[in-house]
Amino acid sequence: MSIITLTTDFGNLYPASMKGVILSIDPGATIVDITHSIPPTDIRAGAFALYSVARYFPAGTIHVAVIDPGVGTDRKPIVISSGGQYFVGPDNGLLIPAANLIGEMKVYEIVKEDIPDSISSTFHGRDIFAPVAAHISSGMDVNDICRATKEYVDLDFSGYVIEKDFIRAKVIYIDAFGNVVTNIPHDEFLRIIFPGTTLSISGRQMPFLRTYGEVSKGRMLSLIGSHGFLEIAVNHGSASRMLSLSNGTEITIGIVKGSL
Amino acid sequence: MSIITLTTDFGNLYPASMKGVILSIDPGATIVDITHSIPPTDIRAGAFALYSVARYFPAGTIHVAVIDPGVGTDRKPIVISSGGQYFVGPDNGLLIPAANLIGEMKVYEIVKEDIPDSISSTFHGRDIFAPVAAHISSGMDVNDICRATKEYVDLDFSGYVIEKDFIRAKVIYIDAFGNVVTNIPHDEFLRIIFPGTTLSISGRQMPFLRTYGEVSKGRMLSLIGSHGFLEIAVNHGSASRMLSLSNGTEITIGIVKGSL
Amino acid sequence: MSIITLTTDFGNLYPASMKGVILSIDPGATIVDITHSIPPTDIRAGAFALYSVARYFPAGTIHVAVIDPGVGTDRKPIVISSGGQYFVGPDNGLLIPAANLIGEMKVYEIVKEDIPDSISSTFHGRDIFAPVAAHISSGMDVNDICRATKEYVDLDFSGYVIEKDFIRAKVIYIDAFGNVVTNIPHDEFLRIIFPGTTLSISGRQMPFLRTYGEVSKGRMLSLIGSHGFLEIAVNHGSASRMLSLSNGTEITIGIVKGSL
Repeated sequence: MSIITLTTDFGNLYPASMKGVILSIDPGATIVDITHSIPPTDIRAGAFALYSVARYFPAGTIHVAVIDPGVGTDRKPIVISSGGQYFVGPDNGLLIPAANLIGEMKVYEIVKEDIPDSISSTFHGRDIFAPVAAHISSGMDVNDICRATKEYVDLDFSGYVIEKDFIRAKVIYIDAFGNVVTNIPHDEFLRIIFPGTTLSISGRQMPFLRTYGEVSKGRMLSLIGSHGFLEIAVNHGSASRMLSLSNGTEITIGIVKGSL
Repeated sequence: MSIITLTTDFGNLYPASMKGVILSIDPGATIVDITHSIPPTDIRAGAFALYSVARYFPAGTIHVAVIDPGVGTDRKPIVISSGGQYFVGPDNGLLIPAANLIGEMKVYEIVKEDIPDSISSTFHGRDIFAPVAAHISSGMDVNDICRATKEYVDLDFSGYVIEKDFIRAKVIYIDAFGNVVTNIPHDEFLRIIFPGTTLSISGRQMPFLRTYGEVSKGRMLSLIGSHGFLEIAVNHGSASRMLSLSNGTEITIGIVKGSL
Repeated sequence: MSIITLTTDFGNLYPASMKGVILSIDPGATIVDITHSIPPTDIRAGAFALYSVARYFPAGTIHVAVIDPGVGTDRKPIVISSGGQYFVGPDNGLLIPAANLIGEMKVYEIVKEDIPDSISSTFHGRDIFAPVAAHISSGMDVNDICRATKEYVDLDFSGYVIEKDFIRAKVIYIDAFGNVVTNIPHDEFLRIIFPGTTLSISGRQMPFLRTYGEVSKGRMLSLIGSHGFLEIAVNHGSASRMLSLSNGTEITIGIVKGSL
């Protein structure tokens, strides 16, 4: 009854062969697609996707993530064990924010010599990561095909500044509605700001509120979003478009006394 | 071996955390995506999606649907039991056409106080509806967390007029091919119209036939579509584009004697 | 524990009713979406999708594929048994390349009289192919509802020419990244060409290499791709756009001595 999740930039066809490989090794696996629509080679977007959902899965879940512009070079294939879950994918930072959030990480390098031969040197998702995940879900010990390592590529979703009058933050995700997710965690933010406060972002003033429904259609607001971070949103609209904000943009959030 | 279906306007990332929550509570659940591509906040489109597929699922299936512009306001979270299936989602009409079609409805309000705490007041799909569905599929009695209610928001897919020479109908769905689905049920229509009859819709004459293949490529026709309603279609083309018809449009269908 | 895969041009809503039908007959089936985004009525694209993934699934897998512009005409519904797997769909060539690749084909016509009645003559995916697949996965003998046939519509993915100085090939697939897949199998190609050789395609010279990472961003290359065929690619870019190549295009590949 083990769960294997998939997060890739493969679009709609390649993931099926990964599923065939997994079910050939572990016919009882429950496979869950997290997303296959990460913008091609966008490691940061893939890392956020995994980061935002991994904690909702039960212990024993194995997450396979493949946004892998370095496939075929000497970047390492790795497995991370953390908080009872496993993360399998390339060593390019993709797995780190999620694994870090879940618990204390143990990082392993997959020893390629133990992986079955394949004609393809370009599809490690199917030929390395999927079979490794399925073998782990079938009960194989990670140490049988991996060795522990201290060296790995890091990726850090922190890097914000909270001052008395302003906050410096980064946009780490924009969802399908155009809601803009910053890297300010809800607990840090709620320590200094209360609902009803007016914020100033990119020259626009908006209230900090609890839910979209508290402003009328088309109005901007900020709130603690479903991912647990400070978000900028427009009720029935796209904050990303209205403020011209994109992934990775740095923003300054002014804290205006009183409420709008 | 219970089945939980998901119908949302969430796009491709948020549904995964609903699945993690469901599998954490009921690891044996079979999760089926109906669609996550409902246009944002379009309750009517979501209702039609669920309406068109629910009857094909076996008794015991639990349908979770979340198109929820009122999330965070005081709109009620509800469960409907109907024909041996369950429907879980917001009280905004979304669940009604499907539940009505399957059998006799019993509507329950979810008593929020029994739902686990969450930091989010904007993602009831993950924090309320998914866990409620998983608890029901695990065998929990609906009465343990709900109370029966007679008050709920209705949504009616009826409202057509059939006269001797014309029919007034509504467009209730446009599929991926541009086929235009009306609210005229096949049995009502077939009572008065036989295949071969000529219809006049938006100033264009077309035959009423049994299948697309009976007209040549690019030609318009009407037929009883796969959803069981009168549809307007173009063989290898888009009727929606050709007639400028969109969801919710009211149309008049003239009945022309004889065949084209 | 049987696996049923789905390959269609249905987009995001109709597949769910096929899944409901399957799970009503065989509640234990594991359903895997191969893709529902085949361009409408593009039999060739659907055939390639199935062709490229079928071999990764275990024996016993049942593949349902429905790209079916002839639905409602007298084209036959068929089942093919090959290499321990089953293929269920319309008799229009769609199933042939995959079934041919897996093993020796036995082709059966589904005898319609044994299929349950349905109001729809336009949705054989739900009303014929899905139930047939679920009955096979539940243990029904194919001969109970089918009769063997020697007549079926063929579809051939071959038709290339390899000469001393040039190769004539066809584009049989373009993936989500814009990588252009030809019909030249890796073993035929590697018999005459070694990595490092320069090729000339559509007036552009490019190296034949092992992986994308061997050229810098934006540079063109050719390689044996993950599907096992000669591909034309651009590192972090779209070869399809850069060379204006689309599905079905015939190309001539010049073999230039020496390396770039």
